[in-house]
Amino acid sequence: MDFFQCMSLNQARSVISDSLAGIAINSELVQLADALGRVVTEDLRAKEDLPPFSRSTVDGFAVRSADTFGANEAAPALFMISGEVVMGKGSITELQPGQAVVIPTGGMLPVGADAVVMLEYTEQHDASILMVFKMAAPGENVVRKGDDIEAGAIIVEQGQKLAAQHIGALAACGWAVISVVNKAEVAILSTGDELVDIQEPMLCGQIRDVNSYALGAMLTEIGCVVKPMGIVKDSFEQFCHFLAEAVATCQLVVISGGSSVGARDYTEKAINALGIPGVLIHGIAVKPGKPTIFGMVGNVPIFGLPGHPVAAMTVCQQLVKVAARTLMGQKQSVDAFGVTAVLARNLPSVPGRDDFINVRLTKQEGTYIATPILGKSGLISTMSEADGMVHIPADKSGLYHGEIVEVVLHNKTE
Amino acid sequence: MDFFQCMSLNQARSVISDSLAGIAINSELVQLADALGRVVTEDLRAKEDLPPFSRSTVDGFAVRSADTFGANEAAPALFMISGEVVMGKGSITELQPGQAVVIPTGGMLPVGADAVVMLEYTEQHDASILMVFKMAAPGENVVRKGDDIEAGAIIVEQGQKLAAQHIGALAACGWAVISVVNKAEVAILSTGDELVDIQEPMLCGQIRDVNSYALGAMLTEIGCVVKPMGIVKDSFEQFCHFLAEAVATCQLVVISGGSSVGARDYTEKAINALGIPGVLIHGIAVKPGKPTIFGMVGNVPIFGLPGHPVAAMTVCQQLVKVAARTLMGQKQSVDAFGVTAVLARNLPSVPGRDDFINVRLTKQEGTYIATPILGKSGLISTMSEADGMVHIPADKSGLYHGEIVEVVLHNKTE
Repeated sequence: MDFFQCMSLNQARSVISDSLAGIAINSELVQLADALGRVVTEDLRAKEDLPPFSRSTVDGFAVRSADTFGANEAAPALFMISGEVVMGKGSITELQPGQAVVIPTGGMLPVGADAVVMLEYTEQHDASILMVFKMAAPGENVVRKGDDIEAGAIIVEQGQKLAAQHIGALAACGWAVISVVNKAEVAILSTGDELVDIQEPMLCGQIRDVNSYALGAMLTEIGCVVKPMGIVKDSFEQFCHFLAEAVATCQLVVISGGSSVGARDYTEKAINALGIPGVLIHGIAVKPGKPTIFGMVGNVPIFGLPGHPVAAMTVCQQLVKVAARTLMGQKQSVDAFGVTAVLARNLPSVPGRDDFINVRLTKQEGTYIATPILGKSGLISTMSEADGMVHIPADKSGLYHGEIVEVVLHNKTE
Repeated sequence: MDFFQCMSLNQARSVISDSLAGIAINSELVQLADALGRVVTEDLRAKEDLPPFSRSTVDGFAVRSADTFGANEAAPALFMISGEVVMGKGSITELQPGQAVVIPTGGMLPVGADAVVMLEYTEQHDASILMVFKMAAPGENVVRKGDDIEAGAIIVEQGQKLAAQHIGALAACGWAVISVVNKAEVAILSTGDELVDIQEPMLCGQIRDVNSYALGAMLTEIGCVVKPMGIVKDSFEQFCHFLAEAVATCQLVVISGGSSVGARDYTEKAINALGIPGVLIHGIAVKPGKPTIFGMVGNVPIFGLPGHPVAAMTVCQQLVKVAARTLMGQKQSVDAFGVTAVLARNLPSVPGRDDFINVRLTKQEGTYIATPILGKSGLISTMSEADGMVHIPADKSGLYHGEIVEVVLHNKTE
């Protein structure tokens, strides 16, 4: 299968990234409670100071710190108790020198006060006279207005995919409605005369369509809306018809199957027939995943993935998901944080080719061990039993037993 | 705040796990395409062999391997071409000695054949006579029926949360409809007289309800259906009313706020009033997160989390999510795979207490560095700017600069 010139993984990524530059999908407004996992279209700045007022971090008495200077066990400072702060209410009148007010944890500091003395360092002489046995520094036991996040500060940057902690910070600073990028609509077509859907009885010589489901799940997982278009068979005309519909209705098209020479020609011909610039990548130096096609029809990227499920999923992980994230405006490095592990055996490779090997992770005395799952190439069980993949870069001729590797997890759901 | 006896994190986990033992929520049948992220209720065994028939892994000629023995460049073996395998069709008649059939990659091996000779080691003399220049071993270039996964083998174990690669394996082995555990319905109540929803204007002395949103997002992320019940204020009666409704309609209840002594008493009293066994945990030796309550009303677990968002989210991560996964039948270790990193500074701690510290991750020359995000305790910005958390176990008095730590990521979405 060396009849075409393969492109390196990095070159392929550049071609895809260049092709998608400037293409943006629409945005929509969503309620904060529905914004988890969505990508924000702009820098989001705090609408309000957090906290919105200076708050006590303890139960005690709000005072002017200067009034406590010199106070100690032997010579307490004396205060007049002038009132009580109620949770959720604005504070009373301005605190005058020599005055103290009762304040609960989280209570709003009265104007004039700049510190809170903890309950345990005080003694109430009667309802109105308080003795304080310890000096309070200015700001002691207080979180000042805006100390956490100042109004106007950027809380979440454009292109961030919102996780729970971002949702929390946005709620804290008054964001009720968020502008997010629409979910990319992805059409998935499977080709191959031998394929049959799991809903159908299987006849002799047929195999199940795996890729519609596996690729669909991978792209659903990162926030796409997947539109399975089923199995396209037989006629080139019918294939072109389905492809045209996919391009017209979706922002990304994934075709799987067609890894044989004939089928690939077929896919390339259909992409080129539909519009310009057409096919841009005719195979990549990646194992598994060599017979991968990439093209553009107008603003719509189209991937032609190998029919072998493991190869299709590997290329989906390395290229299709990256393209989908780019379309959705997600600014993030290609590689998520990986798990560092010790490789349990030698893995030979061919220089000039990026290899991806399924591994199982175990933990021994606090160290992760990555054990390659071997077996004939393309076996689905090598993937379904794996925790993640190890990458052998193109400039290496393999990885050694005992070497530290980074495992990108298949299953990031906790 | 040492007025109550705190329970260790591990003890708390045991109490929760014991309390939930034997409680199962219902299951439902879903289409495979909708099963991503769901937990399966039983071991799923392959319904069909994978591959369902012996397949060629190359383009070439299917033969009886014995007929090639002794063949070499100088003395090819001769075959009669007796037909062609068509993709997706059952194979023709049984292959007789001395016969070869044209077979494409993925084609079904005819009965009698046990190997495939690659195209490049053959030469066709005419339409019916084939010369083979290389011996083929039995099984060469063939994946035999059931080689990948045998019918009856377990593909996915009971309690597995389905990831994309499981969906692929299930499609490959004929699973169209899957029995999965229902999503746990989780009621979230916020308490606190000072709280105001982001939909409302904020008055003097009020702060935003963060926890309804942040905890809701965390639990949505792991597959729960979150039912926000809003902010419950003022009256004990109203609180009991909401709590009773939550217990009657949901499988898990999370109350946040109420970390002050008075509010906690309030929450405990309401839980105990609703049913038995009532409150089982009255505080945990965890920082942040000490004023955490846990109880059961019949089969419904109830958590009372601290009002401080960072503390509430930490306890949600360490206990509530674990409980939700247990309810949903997810069998998996508490700790997901973490990122191994070098700690960028000393982190002192108090023995006897489990500490969780927010860190930012950076990569330097292939090594992850975990930099603690310091600042006054409880600041939301320490969480929203963090990539994950480092755990200082109760038996340590801190972690040292340069020590290898494991970071559990906040944001696992890629």
